[in-house]
Amino acid sequence: MSDTSKSLFQTHREKLEQAVKATHQRHFYAPYPEHPKAYPPDSTKDGKAAFDKHLQKPFAELLQQDPSALTGEEESPFTQEELGIKYPRFEVEQLINKARQAAKSWSKVSTEDKAGLLIESLERMKKRFFEIAYATQHTTGQSWIMSFQASGPHAADRAMEAIALGYHELKRFPDLVDWAKPMGRTEINIQKTYKAIPKGIALCIGCSTFPTWNSMPGMYASLITGNPVILKPHPRAILPIAIVIAELQKLLKEQGIDPNTIQLAPDSSAKLIAVELAEHPDIKIIDYTGGSSFGEFIESLNGKTAFTEKAGVNSVIIDSAADLRLVMRNQAFCASLYSGQMCTAPQNYFIPETGIKQADGSLVSYADAVALLKNEMASLALNPKMAGALGTIQNPLTQHRVEQAKALGTVVLDAPKIKHAQFEHARVQAPSIIEVDADQADAYSQELFGPVVVIIKTKNTEESVQLARKLAQEKGAITCSLYCIDAKLARQITDEMNKVFAPVSLNFTGFAFVNQHAAFSDFHVTGGNPAGNASFTNPEYIQKRFVWLGNRSA
Amino acid sequence: MSDTSKSLFQTHREKLEQAVKATHQRHFYAPYPEHPKAYPPDSTKDGKAAFDKHLQKPFAELLQQDPSALTGEEESPFTQEELGIKYPRFEVEQLINKARQAAKSWSKVSTEDKAGLLIESLERMKKRFFEIAYATQHTTGQSWIMSFQASGPHAADRAMEAIALGYHELKRFPDLVDWAKPMGRTEINIQKTYKAIPKGIALCIGCSTFPTWNSMPGMYASLITGNPVILKPHPRAILPIAIVIAELQKLLKEQGIDPNTIQLAPDSSAKLIAVELAEHPDIKIIDYTGGSSFGEFIESLNGKTAFTEKAGVNSVIIDSAADLRLVMRNQAFCASLYSGQMCTAPQNYFIPETGIKQADGSLVSYADAVALLKNEMASLALNPKMAGALGTIQNPLTQHRVEQAKALGTVVLDAPKIKHAQFEHARVQAPSIIEVDADQADAYSQELFGPVVVIIKTKNTEESVQLARKLAQEKGAITCSLYCIDAKLARQITDEMNKVFAPVSLNFTGFAFVNQHAAFSDFHVTGGNPAGNASFTNPEYIQKRFVWLGNRSA
Repeated sequence: MSDTSKSLFQTHREKLEQAVKATHQRHFYAPYPEHPKAYPPDSTKDGKAAFDKHLQKPFAELLQQDPSALTGEEESPFTQEELGIKYPRFEVEQLINKARQAAKSWSKVSTEDKAGLLIESLERMKKRFFEIAYATQHTTGQSWIMSFQASGPHAADRAMEAIALGYHELKRFPDLVDWAKPMGRTEINIQKTYKAIPKGIALCIGCSTFPTWNSMPGMYASLITGNPVILKPHPRAILPIAIVIAELQKLLKEQGIDPNTIQLAPDSSAKLIAVELAEHPDIKIIDYTGGSSFGEFIESLNGKTAFTEKAGVNSVIIDSAADLRLVMRNQAFCASLYSGQMCTAPQNYFIPETGIKQADGSLVSYADAVALLKNEMASLALNPKMAGALGTIQNPLTQHRVEQAKALGTVVLDAPKIKHAQFEHARVQAPSIIEVDADQADAYSQELFGPVVVIIKTKNTEESVQLARKLAQEKGAITCSLYCIDAKLARQITDEMNKVFAPVSLNFTGFAFVNQHAAFSDFHVTGGNPAGNASFTNPEYIQKRFVWLGNRSA
Repeated sequence: MSDTSKSLFQTHREKLEQAVKATHQRHFYAPYPEHPKAYPPDSTKDGKAAFDKHLQKPFAELLQQDPSALTGEEESPFTQEELGIKYPRFEVEQLINKARQAAKSWSKVSTEDKAGLLIESLERMKKRFFEIAYATQHTTGQSWIMSFQASGPHAADRAMEAIALGYHELKRFPDLVDWAKPMGRTEINIQKTYKAIPKGIALCIGCSTFPTWNSMPGMYASLITGNPVILKPHPRAILPIAIVIAELQKLLKEQGIDPNTIQLAPDSSAKLIAVELAEHPDIKIIDYTGGSSFGEFIESLNGKTAFTEKAGVNSVIIDSAADLRLVMRNQAFCASLYSGQMCTAPQNYFIPETGIKQADGSLVSYADAVALLKNEMASLALNPKMAGALGTIQNPLTQHRVEQAKALGTVVLDAPKIKHAQFEHARVQAPSIIEVDADQADAYSQELFGPVVVIIKTKNTEESVQLARKLAQEKGAITCSLYCIDAKLARQITDEMNKVFAPVSLNFTGFAFVNQHAAFSDFHVTGGNPAGNASFTNPEYIQKRFVWLGNRSA
């Protein structure tokens, strides 16, 4: 590292130590504020201008030399126009060679300096949160505010969490121990050193809906533990993570470290490189977010350490409620947010035919419960102040699949026609609701990605739980909402769902949303069911990226 | 748990806390003394009598009901006579059902009480260390003193290490947090609970040479993290672990817990059950010690968390030495101990044709270096005071393989004929040395299990390192001895070997032996090369046995 009067580690030491503490205390902790107003006054305007400057140009900020071509096919779901940004494309062997080279440079940096540098990269990213927000909006189709929060502060928080837990794990054992074993009148003396050896080159495969949030935890976890990273973004959502990587590369160079320690490896839909990269023998670690079948391929690869987040089917079990209207209002928002394109979004609503008991002793019939959800979802979509939360549909195929899903049951709510308030060509679609009986398992046993939810009429809560449990076990689940005002029963149901490694959110109403997993507090995905084999950020997420090794010297 | 005036957790709390500290400090720490003299005066005599009582009888101490048959084929490598002990045999489905049942009982025990109980089980095992020593001697063929140390105190130390690190990891996050997120003038309040959910039923597959030492870490790691365990011992080495399991079952029953939380599942050579057990969908965790091909099968199973220790090829790189005679004396002991049947034993000696420089400036020629090793190994085998360390050959096939190995190169030392001082029918065999050129890779690229080592004549140290590194990477290595008095070069070679995840023991002479991995200080196997994918006991060894899960309640 170059000499500076104060090292980046010293600069960020307090922040790092706070973050380490926070990963263990799990109280609210958010080093990067999620409110746009916490940032300088002109941030929005400047961010928009910076975003606009990228359009219809090659992205020239990366420090990666000798591309074999340019590639880029991003398109805004808000304007349905191409962004026209071209990124340097590289051959797989080229990427691997550069990563191999960079590994040497990165291995010379101490854990302290790695942590300091990686935190500094988040500070620099912070200056571009608003630009990243526009980049996210016009690639993922999220609303602007969600783009800002998810791709900016929330992603940076998650990266900070990975750095902090990584630092903690790497410093867990002493560097050097004088080991003395008593042997009667004498003793054996051995000097022992402990090292965390990085596993090798890490591949991080991004998704089209959360290009920074879903990629940065694995990327930073691999980097802090010493592994160079090749990040292959989704061809339709490159810019947000390209900005993050460009900042990191510039910082690495400033510090005299090989900028190829992190490489962006964009590909095109016509020639995807994920398989070739993943199968390369030098790739030892793979982080993946995306569909289940490719995820299972990644998990099946021999000799790789894989961290996956795949599809799941999230259940809402409604047994009883303090006030069912508030439940349905909350759920309408959860299901509508980003048009159901969040991995944490609810999909299946299990409602017993016997109705829902409320705290005041009244009973809401099954039909009335269905009507409540329908009305709340319809009015949200039609309310100009709320409809923005829907954002747009990232991929036209999603709309197609939602249309097909309507054939699976009785259509209770058929996507009300809506228009985006600001973008007339926006690919918007209000949510639909279909209704099926419990025995129509085919209708609700797959992830229906996008704006459609299923109401499943069950005999009773017992059946609801049994079905939700089976689905989580066989198809995976990232979240499970439970509404139950009988504390003992709620505990029992929670235990049942926990047995299949689905976490339960109980009686969420108001501003508590099941979709939201907070860094430093909520583990995102448990890793225990088919929705994914990894978790942001539990200790295993860090430790599997390196090998503990002890050398001894007599 | 039954009420007692003082819980087992309270009784053992201080010991537990000390052990947790020790797993992190990595100084010398051995809660169970390795010297027989540290135990009551009549221990040896009583242990022998207790062992003799088992012979030619059914083993009746287990609390497992309704066996389908009896099985047992142990034979003493010292007497070459059958022990005649018969163990209850169970069908796979029966074992699984009982484990499933026991899981409920074990899940009701708090982490504290689990730790207290498991430590108490080691205290009870301690009372039977001498009996276990005889049981180990007459199944594995180890010398009595090695049997005592490896199967008694060293195994208990390793189990304690697993309990301690397990306890630490399980208590790592708070049980309950009141999470409050500020939202302008209001805040969101969510109660969060964190739980470590055990993965399921654990299978532990033992080996014939270290029936307690290699099995107890995985067994105790699974138990402390809440998983019931089915232990399938090697059919030729059951008694040592049967005694440990019997003590644990009795203790579980005393405490009102289902004794099937730990089950012994002996099988016979004629009808092995490891595959059927391993493939059973209810088995979620597998600990395995043994041959590479079965280990690779275990690692390849879908949906299982596997911890393996397989075969490896351990190298000794000799570049230079303070005094080569002391090096070769030390190495002769390392290679001879238990006749090379330790997974940590050296196999390949890389010696440069240019000779070995010594600290006084003198040069030992290649031929003289070879002669030194030969003489030290021959005189150890022929020295009545030392030869006992060889123990016996566990499996007659090992002798056969050693004979075949002699055809691989020039025989430098052909196993001197020896007789055991005490047991006239003992299956003893002194070590042999063969010598090959560096280009005869076939001769030294496989594990030659048993009393045979290979000297490889290399051009220079660079070639020695290159070959040792390649072998560790492709075939695996658990240890690597390096002799080098040039500190800078020693660091470079260490780094090279570390890159393939082989730990280096530098300049070990006297009583420091590369074979010995001490609990609480040395990681046993790194998990990074083909010798195994797991490590006693790093944090990963614990964490992969359970899933962190957070429930939320508004």
